[in-house]
Amino acid sequence: MIPGYFWLIPLAAVFVLYMAAQFFGMMKREPAGTERMVEIATYVRNGALAYLKQQYKVVALVFGIVAIFLALLAYRFNLQNGWVPFAFITAGLGSGLAGFIGMQTATQASSRAAFAASQSLNHGLRVAFRSGAVMGLSVVGLALLDYSFWFVVLNHFEDAWPLNDRMILITETMLTFAMGTSLQALFARVGGGIFTKAADVGADLVGKVEEGIPEDDPRNPATIADNVGDNIGDVAGMGADLYESYYGAILAAAALGAAVFPRGDADLQMKAILAPLLIGAAGAVLSVLGIFVVKTKENASSLELLRSLGLGIKFSGICILLASLLIFYLLDFPDMLWQLWGAVVIGLVAGEVIGKSSEYYTSQAYAQTRHVAEQAKTGPATVIIGGIGVGMLSTAIPVLAVVIGTLLAFFLNQGRENNIIMGLYGISIAAVGMLSTLGITMATDAYGPIADNAGGNAEMSGLGEEVRKRTDALDALGNTTAATGKGFAIGSAALTTLALLASYMSAIKGSMLNIGKQSVMLDGNNILVSTLTLNDIINYFQIHLLNPKVLVGLFIGSMLSFVFCGLSINAVGRAASSMVEEVRRQFREIPGIMENKAIPDYAQCVKISTSSAQREMLIPSLIAILSPILVGIILGVSGVVGLLSGALSSGFVLAIFMANSGGAWDNAKKYIEEGAMGGKGSSAHKAAVIGDTVGDPFKDTAGPSLNILIKLMAMVSVVVVGITVSCS
Amino acid sequence: MIPGYFWLIPLAAVFVLYMAAQFFGMMKREPAGTERMVEIATYVRNGALAYLKQQYKVVALVFGIVAIFLALLAYRFNLQNGWVPFAFITAGLGSGLAGFIGMQTATQASSRAAFAASQSLNHGLRVAFRSGAVMGLSVVGLALLDYSFWFVVLNHFEDAWPLNDRMILITETMLTFAMGTSLQALFARVGGGIFTKAADVGADLVGKVEEGIPEDDPRNPATIADNVGDNIGDVAGMGADLYESYYGAILAAAALGAAVFPRGDADLQMKAILAPLLIGAAGAVLSVLGIFVVKTKENASSLELLRSLGLGIKFSGICILLASLLIFYLLDFPDMLWQLWGAVVIGLVAGEVIGKSSEYYTSQAYAQTRHVAEQAKTGPATVIIGGIGVGMLSTAIPVLAVVIGTLLAFFLNQGRENNIIMGLYGISIAAVGMLSTLGITMATDAYGPIADNAGGNAEMSGLGEEVRKRTDALDALGNTTAATGKGFAIGSAALTTLALLASYMSAIKGSMLNIGKQSVMLDGNNILVSTLTLNDIINYFQIHLLNPKVLVGLFIGSMLSFVFCGLSINAVGRAASSMVEEVRRQFREIPGIMENKAIPDYAQCVKISTSSAQREMLIPSLIAILSPILVGIILGVSGVVGLLSGALSSGFVLAIFMANSGGAWDNAKKYIEEGAMGGKGSSAHKAAVIGDTVGDPFKDTAGPSLNILIKLMAMVSVVVVGITVSCS
Repeated sequence: MIPGYFWLIPLAAVFVLYMAAQFFGMMKREPAGTERMVEIATYVRNGALAYLKQQYKVVALVFGIVAIFLALLAYRFNLQNGWVPFAFITAGLGSGLAGFIGMQTATQASSRAAFAASQSLNHGLRVAFRSGAVMGLSVVGLALLDYSFWFVVLNHFEDAWPLNDRMILITETMLTFAMGTSLQALFARVGGGIFTKAADVGADLVGKVEEGIPEDDPRNPATIADNVGDNIGDVAGMGADLYESYYGAILAAAALGAAVFPRGDADLQMKAILAPLLIGAAGAVLSVLGIFVVKTKENASSLELLRSLGLGIKFSGICILLASLLIFYLLDFPDMLWQLWGAVVIGLVAGEVIGKSSEYYTSQAYAQTRHVAEQAKTGPATVIIGGIGVGMLSTAIPVLAVVIGTLLAFFLNQGRENNIIMGLYGISIAAVGMLSTLGITMATDAYGPIADNAGGNAEMSGLGEEVRKRTDALDALGNTTAATGKGFAIGSAALTTLALLASYMSAIKGSMLNIGKQSVMLDGNNILVSTLTLNDIINYFQIHLLNPKVLVGLFIGSMLSFVFCGLSINAVGRAASSMVEEVRRQFREIPGIMENKAIPDYAQCVKISTSSAQREMLIPSLIAILSPILVGIILGVSGVVGLLSGALSSGFVLAIFMANSGGAWDNAKKYIEEGAMGGKGSSAHKAAVIGDTVGDPFKDTAGPSLNILIKLMAMVSVVVVGITVSCS
Repeated sequence: MIPGYFWLIPLAAVFVLYMAAQFFGMMKREPAGTERMVEIATYVRNGALAYLKQQYKVVALVFGIVAIFLALLAYRFNLQNGWVPFAFITAGLGSGLAGFIGMQTATQASSRAAFAASQSLNHGLRVAFRSGAVMGLSVVGLALLDYSFWFVVLNHFEDAWPLNDRMILITETMLTFAMGTSLQALFARVGGGIFTKAADVGADLVGKVEEGIPEDDPRNPATIADNVGDNIGDVAGMGADLYESYYGAILAAAALGAAVFPRGDADLQMKAILAPLLIGAAGAVLSVLGIFVVKTKENASSLELLRSLGLGIKFSGICILLASLLIFYLLDFPDMLWQLWGAVVIGLVAGEVIGKSSEYYTSQAYAQTRHVAEQAKTGPATVIIGGIGVGMLSTAIPVLAVVIGTLLAFFLNQGRENNIIMGLYGISIAAVGMLSTLGITMATDAYGPIADNAGGNAEMSGLGEEVRKRTDALDALGNTTAATGKGFAIGSAALTTLALLASYMSAIKGSMLNIGKQSVMLDGNNILVSTLTLNDIINYFQIHLLNPKVLVGLFIGSMLSFVFCGLSINAVGRAASSMVEEVRRQFREIPGIMENKAIPDYAQCVKISTSSAQREMLIPSLIAILSPILVGIILGVSGVVGLLSGALSSGFVLAIFMANSGGAWDNAKKYIEEGAMGGKGSSAHKAAVIGDTVGDPFKDTAGPSLNILIKLMAMVSVVVVGITVSCS
């Protein structure tokens, strides 16, 4: 009963993973650099691996507990499907594996990229970019492979139900697997974010400010931890984050696809389920093509290379637009070809607008960041006020882009029958469209931290000013593409959560039947649960905005996004303090560090960051897991929908604010370092450094974690819908 | 048809205003101080009056435009009641008058309080507290008088409708008057907040940091502007703010009271309408009693006086609890006595919890602010990260207090028939309960800035260290009570907005009839509009959370609260920059200022702050007015409800975050100045001063304006409901 064209999806996954292996091999064949370079890289790799090992231990423990809970839910209380505990684990494994591959690649690539940069800028870029592509392709390949596997397994074993119901069961079950990716991503982002910023802030406060030694100086005990942090937060963290976005978006669309035709044509239903997966698969393959487009320009200047990067992305984007049109055409949806394709276009355009807006607000090429730099002239207070003001104003364009995109995708697809689910399916297809270029956009993202680390390696190995300049240039190129990447992650999170909200509502009916509720009283009539429409369910549970449970849920959701940020920001503050004390201790107790006569105890700093991160990431994660369960038990379905809507609407805006404030401060500092407002060493520069430090936990810890928080809360709600419905 | 007990309300108003005049007379009879003190006070008073004159010009212009718009709506398009344009103006006038009285009192009291403080601490406190009472009592008295007047007028002229409908019409019409108070309050808070912080930041940056002269030094050209700002922002601004809270809360409750018994017993309906007004009137009278309780302790120590202040508030609170029980008993509500009284208790307790929580998070007596001070040791970056973290975490308790209070008040009152409106009426009574002690809490609030100004006067008149210490002590006492006051304002805003949301939904039916819509299709049936229930309206307009218009409204509402804050924060930054340049110019171009040989041009600094404030307050205000209209036209009723819910849930949390972060920084600085972390002049102190400066626009401009923004948006939505319904 699985149609033949389905097999294109695992085929694409295998092809993409094969290409990732090829790129990995290319990177490995590059010379690893001088002995000193290899030594430094080894320090960093060992630190990163030690961290990951520790992190995966904690994650394994939490996954174990959650899996037992899910198993109890499934086998003891019959409130969840029996496959969920297993697939929850494989989803988490896939995400962890992608992060691990990315970090393995990145840590091996840094000395090679530094060495390549010592030969030429272009050579450096090529090594870094190819290494970034390894993670980009691993993420999409592993995700596609994982759900292909489960789709086949579930289809094979769950054959007792009638076909239509079975497809709903399968897609809803698969959606709950995504909770594994969200949980893994939250740990990776929060833990990684705390690690990297504790090390960064700690290293800077003692090294740069107190001792007056430059960034990445090997005499600074925290410098290895700082470089380890880049790999953990920006490589492994981002990998897990985008794995989660990609996985969740495609599965949410598939689940809605199944619900669009619940009693209709099973063939149509299958098409609606597989369309987002096929778009994902096509996007993955076409990303490889885009990567080769970038690769062809071997001897170009750095500006041309940036343009070439952009060309690669644009090329992939246009190919995907054509491919998705072809997919919808070949699937032969009746009367929906242009509407669905329109949703893909809307998604890609909205993502592009959000990315460009981030760039506008955070790049020193434009007025906003220059205005922040200008305010550094009157000191740290005004630069911080300026950055917060700019960040808050910067929320307008992304929100409007999502708002307009949502409305267009919805009304284009709901059709003349005002079919809400069909409209929501349109929104979820827009999210898939936005993420379809992930393979290549992530390659351009991931090469940034690799270039950054290459710079650290060059500095510590004493490769000289020229090489450092080249790696800095590569890093700066990466910042531009990273802003776009963050925009895609935030925007797709909003669209996906809207789709998850819908999936949550559709999952309710199954839950009611599951707990033995056969009929309900609605408007004075006794109605069979199996015949309830979405509107009936909305009415029955009073999911409207005058229900105080909904309003109260909104308040709690909004408050939780602030509390979550507060916890992770405080965690960075505390962890940075421990780091400062440790670095001061080493300077005090190990004589000869400053004279290069003794080697600092790098491992101890890595250990401190590691244990802080592990300790501090638990409470924020518990909030995400427990709040939907508790709200569900106390306030029922309406409270949970309020909670998710509140977390989504506040968290989305808060995330943009924090990301863009942080970005504006970072680049205002860079702008001043390039010579504006008195340049390096001026009082404006000192003020800007303070702004940048404040922005670190904003943009690299709290901000990017919020997207995951929102989705994880939605996923948990879907998973425990049985409990919530029993308590409503 | 107006029952006899109604007349207690205007009687109470007149009594309270008479007492305010008495307190004003007592203050005036105090000696005005030395010639120099009077001179300084005159500078400040003239500056403040010049500002108010300018502000009221702009406000008059805006009020004129809005009144014409309302008149067009009423007389040309028949989309609003014909009384609204007039009462809109009197509501604004009342609010402006309360602010004006408060400021007149405050500017005359400052030199008197300083002189009294030079005699004894207690004498200083008494003068300041009595002067504060003038504004507190004026606010409640004028508000009670204004709506008594309109209640009589409307009852007299609108006698064409049947009684039940007439009461709904009258209360809904009166609710729209509150838009006048909200608009006035927004201008007062945003304009005043920009003025005061521009002057404060500008004066500090050049005076303290660049020239090294102390706070309030008469050589600083911006010092008069700074003192003017305290009167404008903290006295007139706060007066207008709380006038608006009080007015809106009571009228929202009255409107819901009318809607509770739409076709029932007219006598019951009248009781439900007048109950919140009677509670307000009783609270006003009992506040006077509380003020006298404070007054009796003439020769106590300062700690005892603080306790005495608290005793006065507690005394009033308990009296109000008893009085409201008596009111409900005498009104003889069937089966609702304890439920409604319970709502009053819930409101008072929730307000108390919110106030205490603000105190906990922002007072240097507790761990949170001390933690922020601790982080000043590692520099400005960590102190700012710490303050933001604390502020974000501090949102949890107030949100939970409001959430629990809302649920309790709702479920206590909705009764066995699950009457939503009855439950919402309970919520609105809780809001009235929370604000019932306003007369006295505001007296304790308003005396803070008077003491602050007395300190400025003492410093500039060279009254010596001892007097300054006493005024500082008075100021510090005021900070504690101000935290409580802010808690009440924020908490009541959340509850009132919930009630406004309900009033908005009830106003829709009248609008539908008004535009000639006699029947609608609902669930396939043709239903007469006049028989629609609240649930029917919710269903008809799809006010549920899967309607993309609602979700999109949520996003926009959430985004607007951030954009509004960004605009006002940026405005402070820009205005402070102009001030810095002007102060620098005066030091440069007027020789002899630093040697006390020439008098700086104080008036020019006042002028700069004035024109900045007037220019910058327009765009934020336009957002509040235009966004509900535009969203209504484009997205209809469901979009507007989403917008209001989004602005409410995000704005409420954001407001608490900003107020508490700002308060924590302020008091962390004070804690260090008291000797902690190395005391005044240490590097920790410098870092804490930077934190305090960042916090200034947080806690005094953006934060308190957010409450008003939320309510103004709700009021505008109610006023233009006719347009929205036509476009839905």
